[in-house]
Amino acid sequence: MSEKLIGSCIFGQSGGPTAVINASAYGVIRAALDAEEITKVYGAAHGIKGVLEDKLYVMDEEDPKELELLLHTPSSELGSCRYKIADPEVDDTDYKRILEIFKKYNVRYFFYNGGNDSMDTCNKISRYMESVGYACRVMGVPKTIDNDLFGTDHCPGFASAAKYIATSCMEINKDARVYDTPMVTIVEIMGRHAGWLAASAALATEFGSGPDLIYLPETDFDLEKFLADIDKVLKANDGKVLVAVSEGIHYADGSFVSEAKTSATDGFGHAQLGGLATLLASIVKERTGAKVRGIELSLLQRCGAHLASATDVNEACGAGKEAVEQAVKGVTGKMVAFKREYVDGKYTCRYELLPLSSVANFEKKVPLEWINEEQNGLKHEFIDYVLPLIQGEPALPRENSLPRYARLKKVLAE
Amino acid sequence: MSEKLIGSCIFGQSGGPTAVINASAYGVIRAALDAEEITKVYGAAHGIKGVLEDKLYVMDEEDPKELELLLHTPSSELGSCRYKIADPEVDDTDYKRILEIFKKYNVRYFFYNGGNDSMDTCNKISRYMESVGYACRVMGVPKTIDNDLFGTDHCPGFASAAKYIATSCMEINKDARVYDTPMVTIVEIMGRHAGWLAASAALATEFGSGPDLIYLPETDFDLEKFLADIDKVLKANDGKVLVAVSEGIHYADGSFVSEAKTSATDGFGHAQLGGLATLLASIVKERTGAKVRGIELSLLQRCGAHLASATDVNEACGAGKEAVEQAVKGVTGKMVAFKREYVDGKYTCRYELLPLSSVANFEKKVPLEWINEEQNGLKHEFIDYVLPLIQGEPALPRENSLPRYARLKKVLAE
Repeated sequence: MSEKLIGSCIFGQSGGPTAVINASAYGVIRAALDAEEITKVYGAAHGIKGVLEDKLYVMDEEDPKELELLLHTPSSELGSCRYKIADPEVDDTDYKRILEIFKKYNVRYFFYNGGNDSMDTCNKISRYMESVGYACRVMGVPKTIDNDLFGTDHCPGFASAAKYIATSCMEINKDARVYDTPMVTIVEIMGRHAGWLAASAALATEFGSGPDLIYLPETDFDLEKFLADIDKVLKANDGKVLVAVSEGIHYADGSFVSEAKTSATDGFGHAQLGGLATLLASIVKERTGAKVRGIELSLLQRCGAHLASATDVNEACGAGKEAVEQAVKGVTGKMVAFKREYVDGKYTCRYELLPLSSVANFEKKVPLEWINEEQNGLKHEFIDYVLPLIQGEPALPRENSLPRYARLKKVLAE
Repeated sequence: MSEKLIGSCIFGQSGGPTAVINASAYGVIRAALDAEEITKVYGAAHGIKGVLEDKLYVMDEEDPKELELLLHTPSSELGSCRYKIADPEVDDTDYKRILEIFKKYNVRYFFYNGGNDSMDTCNKISRYMESVGYACRVMGVPKTIDNDLFGTDHCPGFASAAKYIATSCMEINKDARVYDTPMVTIVEIMGRHAGWLAASAALATEFGSGPDLIYLPETDFDLEKFLADIDKVLKANDGKVLVAVSEGIHYADGSFVSEAKTSATDGFGHAQLGGLATLLASIVKERTGAKVRGIELSLLQRCGAHLASATDVNEACGAGKEAVEQAVKGVTGKMVAFKREYVDGKYTCRYELLPLSSVANFEKKVPLEWINEEQNGLKHEFIDYVLPLIQGEPALPRENSLPRYARLKKVLAE
């Protein structure tokens, strides 16, 4: 057990919001408020930018009941940022400023909640504080709907997005098959480099109402094969096809399909305003003559708190709590990770601590052996992986049958 | 009380699907199975087309438990159609065929579930059967997310779509405000001629997390005013704007904004692939320089059974049941309509019967006096109207934390 370190803490949120990042916020804030070593709990406005700009909210001032509503409030309630911090060896301006703020508020604990880039930020701050001999324990709390963080079985935020995607695909599938005329529906799902989210549409298929075809960025996209796949299903399947595509699908040369404004392959030269689904829909329409509809799940999939997985909410909150409890015990420079275990065949999740340096800037993709041979669907290994994660419906606080989100006072620190 | 009419019945679904049209199906089918006057219950495949093509499913063959799951199964489970039936005075081919099928199966009751056009079909069949002296009771069951049916306080399907829209706008609003940079988000909502659905986004605003601006097709759209409105909110509102637009917004000359590929007004000449939200987003981006995102709620809003209003589910089912019970009592040529009443200040809904001829082909729009003076938002009268309709969460049947829809056998009649 390390020496007792007494002081205040700062918590910040970074990167794209999720349905449960505020559940992690609650985990951190609640545990920090309860920890006797932590004298004051600050929330940084817009992540590390709030630290640099000395814009900190005093969490001790909040109504505990409102704080608890963070468990079911989507998006990043304290504000987020996509600020790329410099390498301290190259430019230490930001670090000097951070140290200044840390000293000003006697900050001895720093918790940062985000994805790859945020763990990199966290890692750099941790190393800098160590190098200048300022005692501060720095912990990363994972977050990303993309599920691409290295070294953890899965990431908070992914499962709720996956559940949103699977449920929405089940509903779309029902809607897209009502007429007795040919119809191709293409659903565009987030995930620029990793296909975990698009793959989750396979859950809908597994339970009887989902996509016929799913394309991930883990493999090269072949437009002719794609059109042939659709044609095959159109003929076999009563003239209806539901397709799920990851926004990150790319041709063999690495270029994103979504950015192919003029492509020799598809022969199209449209001024492209819509997204990938719209582009593919127009190509399919031209080739098949079928009625085609492109649907982009857009922000809805990452902020759909009303369809959150209770497992995800609990794990996200737990990860935040774990970060605080470990830091208080003396741990620093680590990210809380998840390890999956099956006890009597039942899924459970155990926390692990990974060095921040081992997580930062790596990307974890869907294993190729979980993708079917035709590269247009998922094998059962993927279903086995994702199904336990989406289980359970949280008891959502409602007012007038609409969500009741946390209303924070956000009192700025003097 | 009319003479007892013994025979079989046909039920059909028509027009665009909704989250609760299958709840009406359940209401009709269950009540028809229970009615001693009704000897057999047929479901028409793809509405009136199934009658014309002699493609009828025998509902008596279904497992009652699976039938009950129709209450929470979105879209039109028996299939739908957009078949426009001729005027019998002009061309009676279809009517002769329908009569033939009615005689073949001894059909004495016909229940049709749909919107404006479907009530027109229903009305024409009713009149034709009367004119040829074939005893058959014909009843319409209302359905439309558009809420534009004449003579009824509201329509089954509308409230669930409204609840989906309000909830999604609350979530989008949270997501669209996380960064400290200017951001305009434009959400496109269904409703070609009536703005009831786009107006429902005002519920999100009412409860603290919704659009700043809402545009309906009930008023003329002015692009310069729209851009000025956005600019005003951008400046007043921390650089964030959430806008909801009805797909049916149109310029003063009646042309749809969505179809303005080359407009002297906006100076744009893009080959338009995306929808209205994408088009408006590109215009706003050009004018304001802010980051802009267009989101189309697309099919999601009309098939979102997981966010259905329990009030809507109950009323949709009740309307189906009422149609059967009234028909058995001798009523014909009527549509079941809703009348709102407040008992001790509490909303209740009473069924009424309207002549089909009074409903067919009329459209009910959002009253102009419920729209604010700036024509970019709703007054409280609208909230008072819509709020009672979205109340209550149905107990959704789930398997593995995903929706469990009805699995019908769909046994074809010999």
